[in-house]
Amino acid sequence: MEEDHNLPKIPYSKDDDYTRLQAKARRDLVTSATQSNFEHIDNFSFDPKVVAGNIENFAGVAQVPIGFAGPLLLKGEHAHGGFYVPMATTEGTLVASYNRGMKIARLAGGIRTTVIADAMNRAPVFVFKNALLARNFGNWVIQHFDKIKFKAEETTQSGKLLNIEQYPVGKMRWLRFNYSTGDAAGQNMVTKATHRATSWMLSQNIEGLEHFSLAAGLDTDKKHSHLNALHTRGKKVVAEIVLPKQLMEEVLHINPSKMYYLRRLSGMGSVISGSINNGAHSPNGITALFIATGQDVANVAESSCAYYYGEILDSGDYYYSITLPSLIVATYGGGTGLPTQRECLEMMDCYGRDKVLKLAEIIAGVVLCGELSLSAAVASDEWVSSHEQYGRNRP
Amino acid sequence: MEEDHNLPKIPYSKDDDYTRLQAKARRDLVTSATQSNFEHIDNFSFDPKVVAGNIENFAGVAQVPIGFAGPLLLKGEHAHGGFYVPMATTEGTLVASYNRGMKIARLAGGIRTTVIADAMNRAPVFVFKNALLARNFGNWVIQHFDKIKFKAEETTQSGKLLNIEQYPVGKMRWLRFNYSTGDAAGQNMVTKATHRATSWMLSQNIEGLEHFSLAAGLDTDKKHSHLNALHTRGKKVVAEIVLPKQLMEEVLHINPSKMYYLRRLSGMGSVISGSINNGAHSPNGITALFIATGQDVANVAESSCAYYYGEILDSGDYYYSITLPSLIVATYGGGTGLPTQRECLEMMDCYGRDKVLKLAEIIAGVVLCGELSLSAAVASDEWVSSHEQYGRNRP
Amino acid sequence: MEEDHNLPKIPYSKDDDYTRLQAKARRDLVTSATQSNFEHIDNFSFDPKVVAGNIENFAGVAQVPIGFAGPLLLKGEHAHGGFYVPMATTEGTLVASYNRGMKIARLAGGIRTTVIADAMNRAPVFVFKNALLARNFGNWVIQHFDKIKFKAEETTQSGKLLNIEQYPVGKMRWLRFNYSTGDAAGQNMVTKATHRATSWMLSQNIEGLEHFSLAAGLDTDKKHSHLNALHTRGKKVVAEIVLPKQLMEEVLHINPSKMYYLRRLSGMGSVISGSINNGAHSPNGITALFIATGQDVANVAESSCAYYYGEILDSGDYYYSITLPSLIVATYGGGTGLPTQRECLEMMDCYGRDKVLKLAEIIAGVVLCGELSLSAAVASDEWVSSHEQYGRNRP
Amino acid sequence: MEEDHNLPKIPYSKDDDYTRLQAKARRDLVTSATQSNFEHIDNFSFDPKVVAGNIENFAGVAQVPIGFAGPLLLKGEHAHGGFYVPMATTEGTLVASYNRGMKIARLAGGIRTTVIADAMNRAPVFVFKNALLARNFGNWVIQHFDKIKFKAEETTQSGKLLNIEQYPVGKMRWLRFNYSTGDAAGQNMVTKATHRATSWMLSQNIEGLEHFSLAAGLDTDKKHSHLNALHTRGKKVVAEIVLPKQLMEEVLHINPSKMYYLRRLSGMGSVISGSINNGAHSPNGITALFIATGQDVANVAESSCAYYYGEILDSGDYYYSITLPSLIVATYGGGTGLPTQRECLEMMDCYGRDKVLKLAEIIAGVVLCGELSLSAAVASDEWVSSHEQYGRNRP
Repeated sequence: MEEDHNLPKIPYSKDDDYTRLQAKARRDLVTSATQSNFEHIDNFSFDPKVVAGNIENFAGVAQVPIGFAGPLLLKGEHAHGGFYVPMATTEGTLVASYNRGMKIARLAGGIRTTVIADAMNRAPVFVFKNALLARNFGNWVIQHFDKIKFKAEETTQSGKLLNIEQYPVGKMRWLRFNYSTGDAAGQNMVTKATHRATSWMLSQNIEGLEHFSLAAGLDTDKKHSHLNALHTRGKKVVAEIVLPKQLMEEVLHINPSKMYYLRRLSGMGSVISGSINNGAHSPNGITALFIATGQDVANVAESSCAYYYGEILDSGDYYYSITLPSLIVATYGGGTGLPTQRECLEMMDCYGRDKVLKLAEIIAGVVLCGELSLSAAVASDEWVSSHEQYGRNRP
Repeated sequence: MEEDHNLPKIPYSKDDDYTRLQAKARRDLVTSATQSNFEHIDNFSFDPKVVAGNIENFAGVAQVPIGFAGPLLLKGEHAHGGFYVPMATTEGTLVASYNRGMKIARLAGGIRTTVIADAMNRAPVFVFKNALLARNFGNWVIQHFDKIKFKAEETTQSGKLLNIEQYPVGKMRWLRFNYSTGDAAGQNMVTKATHRATSWMLSQNIEGLEHFSLAAGLDTDKKHSHLNALHTRGKKVVAEIVLPKQLMEEVLHINPSKMYYLRRLSGMGSVISGSINNGAHSPNGITALFIATGQDVANVAESSCAYYYGEILDSGDYYYSITLPSLIVATYGGGTGLPTQRECLEMMDCYGRDKVLKLAEIIAGVVLCGELSLSAAVASDEWVSSHEQYGRNRP
Repeated sequence: MEEDHNLPKIPYSKDDDYTRLQAKARRDLVTSATQSNFEHIDNFSFDPKVVAGNIENFAGVAQVPIGFAGPLLLKGEHAHGGFYVPMATTEGTLVASYNRGMKIARLAGGIRTTVIADAMNRAPVFVFKNALLARNFGNWVIQHFDKIKFKAEETTQSGKLLNIEQYPVGKMRWLRFNYSTGDAAGQNMVTKATHRATSWMLSQNIEGLEHFSLAAGLDTDKKHSHLNALHTRGKKVVAEIVLPKQLMEEVLHINPSKMYYLRRLSGMGSVISGSINNGAHSPNGITALFIATGQDVANVAESSCAYYYGEILDSGDYYYSITLPSLIVATYGGGTGLPTQRECLEMMDCYGRDKVLKLAEIIAGVVLCGELSLSAAVASDEWVSSHEQYGRNRP
Repeated sequence: MEEDHNLPKIPYSKDDDYTRLQAKARRDLVTSATQSNFEHIDNFSFDPKVVAGNIENFAGVAQVPIGFAGPLLLKGEHAHGGFYVPMATTEGTLVASYNRGMKIARLAGGIRTTVIADAMNRAPVFVFKNALLARNFGNWVIQHFDKIKFKAEETTQSGKLLNIEQYPVGKMRWLRFNYSTGDAAGQNMVTKATHRATSWMLSQNIEGLEHFSLAAGLDTDKKHSHLNALHTRGKKVVAEIVLPKQLMEEVLHINPSKMYYLRRLSGMGSVISGSINNGAHSPNGITALFIATGQDVANVAESSCAYYYGEILDSGDYYYSITLPSLIVATYGGGTGLPTQRECLEMMDCYGRDKVLKLAEIIAGVVLCGELSLSAAVASDEWVSSHEQYGRNRP
């Protein structure tokens, strides 16, 4: 078949593709084809060889502004003390808003952070002649879990197969393999391990098997799903704070009951709209940290899911929490080792091995600060802009 | 109240905060506090003044590698012809995969793209003494639509109030204001316009009103919701292609019915998991383009929602489509004018006025290429890795 | 083709099928085939001719016990005053629980009920050659609404076409026709009207149309959908009450803040589980009334969706509301005219024309009573069974 | 407090409430208050004493017409052979439609039915001082599973605690106790067992526990939830059939590919609308069987959830399946022993012990017949009413 157009192909060198020369050749081609110029994307500070595993057809870099926020005061298991946080964004007021939230959190004595679950998954599907044979297979899987685990773990040093959930429909049976994956996000690791494990399974002469796919929609890689919110994909992490009533009134000029009421209304709006998130704006903070630290930013689609829960304590203080049920992060592999990305991880002492839970806690803490800041702003704006106009203070 | 820690604050200059000196001061502070060094994030090619509206506490830039993919061959209403596409990512194989999809699309004669809806929204809530008064208010809003529209549009030259949807529950009534917003994404524009309109409404002595909030969860700004997938937030855009059977078999080595079957299984997995997306991996392409072109990347959470629909035509060819129901993009404002970001828009002739529908079509086209590429890869991998092992080709 | 078994067919008389004799012939056949006896289902009090439009292969009746609850004290627009309510169920404590809720409601001065939306729908799909032609068709529909409405309304005296929502994906476009349907539930009416309207549309030489179906999943007839909860299918009706603090404490032995806290926890559980209903047990009351009054009981699947919303007012009293977004009811047609069913409607003065909004309000009122009763019971049970064991009263 | 109205209370006798006299006294009260008459609901064929555990304020019965459908030809594990099925409904054509589906199924050689999961659940919530203590508690639960199981099973002979799922958010932790419950639906059994188990847990001095509720929204008793569709509430049961191509064409006058296409469109409509059910009309059959056999009909809200999955086999025949993920049924207890209800169970040999899986299979088989019948009718109607008008047969 012939291609139906006359545009030239982007240059590629089999031998030495990651050079400044090759990057220039690509920009030149586009310049000559489109009359657009490049005076900025070629401004990178590293040898193109360093991005060899991270990009193809390398032509330059996007310069995304970084603002520093902090100190973020945490009382976590893995992240303890004050942190300066690099946030990469082009949205004005974002860094300022999170920074303000961090101040509120400091005044309240800091944020408690806890990772409460941790698993990466891959969900192959097995299709059988009928539902009965699919059910028999499900029992076989339970009986052979140790062997399946052994085969899966042959492919990885840090990955461990934790369990296999089963989701049957009709004559199909999805198996959701859950792994701990160390400091990597682990999508590739679990794919490889599950491939090995299922290859062994397929060799076992399973009765009535008609089809097998290593992935078939259920793991919802890169996509939010209710399943992943329920059962975790990545880390499930909680950030909590108690805001003293006095702090809210004197510093934030907010009545706890007013903030509570506004969050409650938002929660109701969230239910009606069928949202995956009853928080205020978790994707803002997560995205800014993901870009800065070399995470797979596309995971924002699933990682930004958040559950707000708050209440007014007997003391009159405000308990405010955010739960991120499927936060996918890494401190090793992927984009984490690139020059600016690594610097951003290092400024939080989050680069490399045994750091991933720390990073997860920091991100949860940052998200909570953003929630506090926006909630307070909305509440205070309400007060000014609306209340006096119709003369009533709710609730 | 006193802060409970001893970490220094990040420097800030009231008079001249966007300078290389200030950026350095911030990095130095973090260096001294954390012993981390910065040799890369300070490598930006612009005067910090240009990011004044885009970031606070500016300290440097993230360098995110850009790869060029293309040509992307489109037959859209606004995007017609071949395009080179800048993709910013740190995930290896991503650019290669989309590039391969673009080749498939070229061989098939190109992609048809169509924007089928366009609206940005803000959804204030009005709370009444009871449901009856809330319903009366709903009727009042219908009767006073022209005046409300007039007040809203006082605040903007390009924004137009299209309609107001009503979502009542109990004594609350959310009004979802839908606007066309020209080439801006429009979140700020619609907030300002809705603020003006509702301020007028609040001045009209509405019977039984107890509370008003300009935002209360239902607009799900930055968050996916079923409501926004149904009724659009940003652009609703479709990309479609017909893949000739011969192309699939000879070039992709895929049987149309095999690809169909695999997509169908994935669709079923998606339904069971409660996913917001029955496609393959739309967030990958969208995120890479969003970072490169200065979009608000946090919108990936809502913009990455996608509906796949495919069928085998009577001719035996494969109709493959992707619908992005809530794609939020801009070619003006926000981060679009920053140095590298503008270059990336300009290489697609998408910078500035009257370009936003073109950009929306390009992004939809890119997403479709990614779907084709991954679907083909999965299918072909299946063939190799699984089929021969248990000797059956389904269907 | 031959049937693969030896069981006799159920007798059927072309001329006179609805007789006691025919009913007996059917029972006798089953008795002889299965050795089971019938001494009760033949105990019906009417001439079988009356069920001719309601059942086929008539063989007898299920006797479902009816309990009377009430008086239910309502302050609605259509239902005002006290009502005795017939509830048909086999679940012990159900009637008692609703009856107790009615007592609470009486003590609090009654329930305010309001129908806030009313529409029955049918959602045909039109499939085109591509998305652009589908979009063009969408515009054509807007332009020809008056004619479409005219054609639709030719088929019905009481049905009115209110509007047509459009839901496009890929090359498909679903049109959701919304009608008011008088006192009938209206599913058949809207099917007939939409059939007529679309027949005319199909005769108009629509460019690029490839397929049409009168129904294709989107109307979710008999099935809950988020769409129908947002946009109503049947009546959207609210029941509200203010429970005085003193009443709660002295009669119900519940602290308002305790009830509030428990409802809030349940609301959170509902969000996590992905429930269609954040109330307590609306299906119980709705089903019991549906069986008693000859509604289409299968509609419980969609009609039982409910949104709870409550708050503690400044006065300390408790505002408690329930919203039923898609309650499908009739006072005319279907099973409403059958002997026991009609008696049950008549005891509420809800049989026949101009009564359907009244019935909708009564059902919403009943549901609210069930919510009050169960919430109070849970709260009080908590107090007894749990509180003292671990010594803390929350909040 | 005083009641705010003058209506008399419904009579109640502490000593002897379940008599014909008492039932009459209630009807008389309503007659005198509302001028409505009762000539039919008093027509019951049993001593009121038999409904003592099933209803309060007994006043008579609803007579719901029963039609017999069948024979239903099953090839299940528990239901094997031909069955006559009692369906109680007031909706004309319902029995005829299911009966036609049963004929199709017989011609195709019968339906394979399989129960693939079985569990009833109760989901108490434990609220802690913070998320860390909640996580610690989660580990404690895993360690003490045997003891918890022992305590739970003290309360029941037939119930077995299978496992405990954990769903944490913020400082809360829902535990979802899953039980097998023999032939009862089991809601009361699992409540009692979980109450006993949690009472023991609460006595164990759990660190940081602030609140406990035996139920808090997550079990979604009587309400559909995505969680219950994923993890079963009641029986998860599949019905499957292979429809020979020749049968479809000669008897049903349907092309397999046409039926496939129509189901696919419906599936897409279902996805867009956010439906809990991508089948055709499962609630119709389920409700009719539930009313006839004394099931808790309110459970239709959750039990009617259904997943359709179909494909055209290599042979050209049509594989058609329906999965009911949360079917709640009993053959013992509740309303199953009432006079007409028991007769309806007995005619299928489904009354009493060791019958519940059989009943679940029959219901799944009936649902599948309804799906076949309606799908065929829609397809054939399409052919007649629409196809010729615009001259194209899709696909």
